[in-house]
Amino acid sequence: MESLPLSKAFTLIEPGPVVLVTTHDGRKDNVMTISWTMVLDFTANFAITTGPWNYSYTALEESRECVVAIPTVDLLDTVIGVGTCSGADIDKFAQFKLTRLKARHVRAPIIKECLANIECKVVDIVTRYNIVVLEGFAAYLDSARPEKKTVHAVGDGTFIVDGRTINRREMMQDRLPNGI
Amino acid sequence: MESLPLSKAFTLIEPGPVVLVTTHDGRKDNVMTISWTMVLDFTANFAITTGPWNYSYTALEESRECVVAIPTVDLLDTVIGVGTCSGADIDKFAQFKLTRLKARHVRAPIIKECLANIECKVVDIVTRYNIVVLEGFAAYLDSARPEKKTVHAVGDGTFIVDGRTINRREMMQDRLPNGI
Repeated sequence: MESLPLSKAFTLIEPGPVVLVTTHDGRKDNVMTISWTMVLDFTANFAITTGPWNYSYTALEESRECVVAIPTVDLLDTVIGVGTCSGADIDKFAQFKLTRLKARHVRAPIIKECLANIECKVVDIVTRYNIVVLEGFAAYLDSARPEKKTVHAVGDGTFIVDGRTINRREMMQDRLPNGI
Repeated sequence: MESLPLSKAFTLIEPGPVVLVTTHDGRKDNVMTISWTMVLDFTANFAITTGPWNYSYTALEESRECVVAIPTVDLLDTVIGVGTCSGADIDKFAQFKLTRLKARHVRAPIIKECLANIECKVVDIVTRYNIVVLEGFAAYLDSARPEKKTVHAVGDGTFIVDGRTINRREMMQDRLPNGI
């Protein structure tokens, strides 16, 4: 999994794919499924919505670290499985055969099977709205991975897979950050 | 454009499509393109990221109202056009041939050409992160519209169109809100 310039990390989140978020609570790793994410600016700052109803939340709140991993459509049933059980009861990495790789800046693990990973620190938690503000410190992309299509949760139990890509870089060139 | 139950409004935002946001500043209407959105819970509460760099922001801040409209892929060049010019200079509705319909709860207009619209009030602005918290008061869906595929901005000038839909309602039934 090669490094991706941090300046491009927001392009992993902006299209709105469902993501996996790993944490480490000092004793063990955990992973949760998150669909509620948002880019905050053209750097590696973004937000996720989560709260005490997720077992991972305590680890996120206390360790102030996580990894945001981007799964693809071939992992959909894993993503749903991770999202419908609790790390309080089981080791989700073993249960769903997810391979952990060591991150550089955080204790939460990178997920080898995912298309991309972003090592993040928790900048702030806007508790009133359960918004966790993250800053990325390193990003990785597995560009050799054959399947690159991500999945968008609708919220009603259905998921939209990425379709074709339309290029409008020329129309937008004045509005794109340098190097993107 | 028929009413959509407010309880389903979050399913318009959760997949992460690029949206149009209309405002009314007391004198005139305006519209902007927003890709940075996030669901906040299973009701009609969600967040968008915007700030003073957008001309519409003042209207949003002062009127505390807007309409979030969901365009489809046939409107992509309109969406990009709206996003790359300023309402300070031109009437974007005239320029891009967007038809305004009167909303019920807000003075900002509904956009007839869009697949869906959500009338919103501004609940709060988390100025530190430029996060505008919205609450939906009415939602509409044009289910007779032939084109229903939305578009996801990558942030680099490319856009991903909705592909196929995968149904996992059965696996997720214990986690879905009632009636969704």
